[in-house]
Amino acid sequence: MTAIPPDEIRSFRNALGAFATGVTVVSTRSADGIDVGLTANSFNSVSLDPPMVLWSLAKASRALPIFAGSRYFTIHVLAADQEAISTRFSRATQDKFAGLNIERGLGDTPMLRDYSARFQCRMAFQYEGGDHVIFVGQVEAFDHTERKPLVFHAGQYALAVNKSRDDTSTESNPDPTSSFSQDFLIYLLGRAHHQMFLEIRKELERRGLSEDQWFVLSLLGVSDHRTLTELDRLLAYTGKRVTYNMLAGLAAADLVRLGGAYDPGARASLTDNGRRVVIELVSVAKAAESGAERNLDPIEIHVLKRTLRTIIRDTDPGLPLLLSPIDAE
Amino acid sequence: MTAIPPDEIRSFRNALGAFATGVTVVSTRSADGIDVGLTANSFNSVSLDPPMVLWSLAKASRALPIFAGSRYFTIHVLAADQEAISTRFSRATQDKFAGLNIERGLGDTPMLRDYSARFQCRMAFQYEGGDHVIFVGQVEAFDHTERKPLVFHAGQYALAVNKSRDDTSTESNPDPTSSFSQDFLIYLLGRAHHQMFLEIRKELERRGLSEDQWFVLSLLGVSDHRTLTELDRLLAYTGKRVTYNMLAGLAAADLVRLGGAYDPGARASLTDNGRRVVIELVSVAKAAESGAERNLDPIEIHVLKRTLRTIIRDTDPGLPLLLSPIDAE
Repeated sequence: MTAIPPDEIRSFRNALGAFATGVTVVSTRSADGIDVGLTANSFNSVSLDPPMVLWSLAKASRALPIFAGSRYFTIHVLAADQEAISTRFSRATQDKFAGLNIERGLGDTPMLRDYSARFQCRMAFQYEGGDHVIFVGQVEAFDHTERKPLVFHAGQYALAVNKSRDDTSTESNPDPTSSFSQDFLIYLLGRAHHQMFLEIRKELERRGLSEDQWFVLSLLGVSDHRTLTELDRLLAYTGKRVTYNMLAGLAAADLVRLGGAYDPGARASLTDNGRRVVIELVSVAKAAESGAERNLDPIEIHVLKRTLRTIIRDTDPGLPLLLSPIDAE
Repeated sequence: MTAIPPDEIRSFRNALGAFATGVTVVSTRSADGIDVGLTANSFNSVSLDPPMVLWSLAKASRALPIFAGSRYFTIHVLAADQEAISTRFSRATQDKFAGLNIERGLGDTPMLRDYSARFQCRMAFQYEGGDHVIFVGQVEAFDHTERKPLVFHAGQYALAVNKSRDDTSTESNPDPTSSFSQDFLIYLLGRAHHQMFLEIRKELERRGLSEDQWFVLSLLGVSDHRTLTELDRLLAYTGKRVTYNMLAGLAAADLVRLGGAYDPGARASLTDNGRRVVIELVSVAKAAESGAERNLDPIEIHVLKRTLRTIIRDTDPGLPLLLSPIDAE
C-alpha cells in the first residue's frame, strides 16, 4: 500500500466534510483508573436489535490502547450549546473531566450530565479500518433529551434548522400580495415589523404619541441625556429627523426634560413619568415579541436575529457611536 | 440474545435520531447487471490513509445480497436541495434510476451527476453488526462540490446553518443602543427594514411621494384595480389608513387613475406612468436587497425568509384575501 500525498489527503478530508455529522464525546475509564474522553464525529448507528452503534478512533491516538482494552464506553451526543465541551474534549489536555460535574456509568465510565443523547455501551467488536480502529458497542443503557444538536460540517460547527416546515407555512398563509411578498425580503421585513408593531402603535395612540416620538423615548430609555444633534444622528437609520418641536412636545407631555431653550447642544432626559412610560411600552413590545416567536424554536430565533444583525451591519449608513465625540453639524 | 420490545426499539431509534447526519445515496450494479441504489444515513468516514469510509445495511434488505456480492459501490452525499432524490431512493420501487441522468463509475456502478460529494469505493471489508452488515469501502476516486448539505435529524430533514459567525458579527457591530438591540427582535426587524428602506426613501423623496403612497402604489403593482376599502384593508398591517385624499394626490401626479368621484366602491388603477414608477422603485428595492444579503448564504436567506413568514402568519391581525368578497364597512 503506497502512501497518499498530503495534498490528496487534504482534499479527501474536505470531501468527507461534505457529510454533515453530529458531534459526540466518547468516554471510558482505563484498567488502572484513568478517565479518558475525546471528541468524535465518526459515530453512527448500526443495529436496532440488538441495539448497536459504532465510532472509529485513529490507531495513532494515545487513547487507542485504553479504548481497545476497555469493556465499556459511553457516547454523548452533544447539544447545540455544547461547542465548548466539544472543543475541550478535542484537545490533548491531561484531565479533561477536571471541574465537570460527572456521574459514573457501566464500568465506572465517567459520564457527562449534559447531552442530547447518551449511550452506555459494552464493547462488542473491534474492526480493522485502515489507520483507524472501528469500535462497535452494544448499547446497554441510553438517555435522550429533546435538545437541538450540535452539527459539524465542512470543518465548522453548525446549527440544524428544520426543513420540512417550508411548504406548510406557505400553504397556510395564502397572501394576497404574494407575487411581491414571496421573494421580497424588504416586504417580509416590513410586514413582520409592522404587524409586531401594531400593539405598540395602539398604546402610542392611546397616549397621543407618534411613532417618531416613540423612537426618541426608547432611545433615551437606553441612553439618556442626549443632545438634539445626537438623537437626530442616532435615529438617522429610520429616515426620520428629530426636531426641536418633537422634543418640546415630549417636554409638554412631561415625558422629557430639556436642558435649555432651543440649542442643538441642550440635552434631553427622561422625566420619571417618561421613564415609566418607556418601561410600560417596552413590556408591550416584549409581549408582542413572545407572540411573534411562539412557533419558532430557539435555533430559528437565534439564526433570525443573527442574520438581521448581519443585514443591519451591511446596510448601516454610517452611524456614529454614542461614546465617540459627536460634532454639531 | 432476547428480542427487544417494540417500545424500546422506538425509543432507541429516537435517541439515535439525536445525532444529526448527512444523507447519502449508495449505488452499485449487481453481477447480473441490475442497477441498485438506496438512501442511507449510516455513512461515516473511517480512515484517511488509506482512504476508507463505511456505511451499514440491514440484513433484511433485499439489496443486501447484491451489495454483499459487489466489488464496487458509490456513495453520493446529497446537497440541501436534493430531498426529492433522498425520498426517491428510500422507497421500494423497481428502477429508481429511471429517467435520471446517470453516468457509470468503477464496476459500471450507476452514479448520479448531482451531489455534494461522491465516493467511488472498492469493497474492503464486510463486518458483522447485529441486524446490519457494516460495509467498509476503500475510496478509489472522489468528487466534491461546495454545496450545502442535506441534513437528517430527529426523523426530519434539516438545513445546516453556520454557527461560527455569531461572535464576530456581534463584535464588528458595536451598537450604541445595544442593550436594547441585542435581545429585541422588534428593534432588529425595524432597524434592518428601515436601513434597507433608506435608498427607496431617497427615491420617494426625489419624486415627492410619501411612504404611505408607496404602499398603495406597490400594492396596486401586484394587484391593480382595487377599491379604497380594499386598499385600506390590505394595508391595515402597516397601521396606516388609506384615504381618499391620498388617492387623489396620486391621481393628480398621474400615477393612479380613479374610477369615479369619492366613493368607497370606486376603483383605483395604475396609470402607465404609475406602472413605470413602480417598476423603477421595485428595481431600487431589489438593489437594496442584494446589498443587504451580500454576506448571507442561500441557506441563511432561506431560513430568514421562512421565519419572517411564520412571524407574519402568527401576528396577522386578520387580513381579508383579495379573492374573497370584501364588504364595505
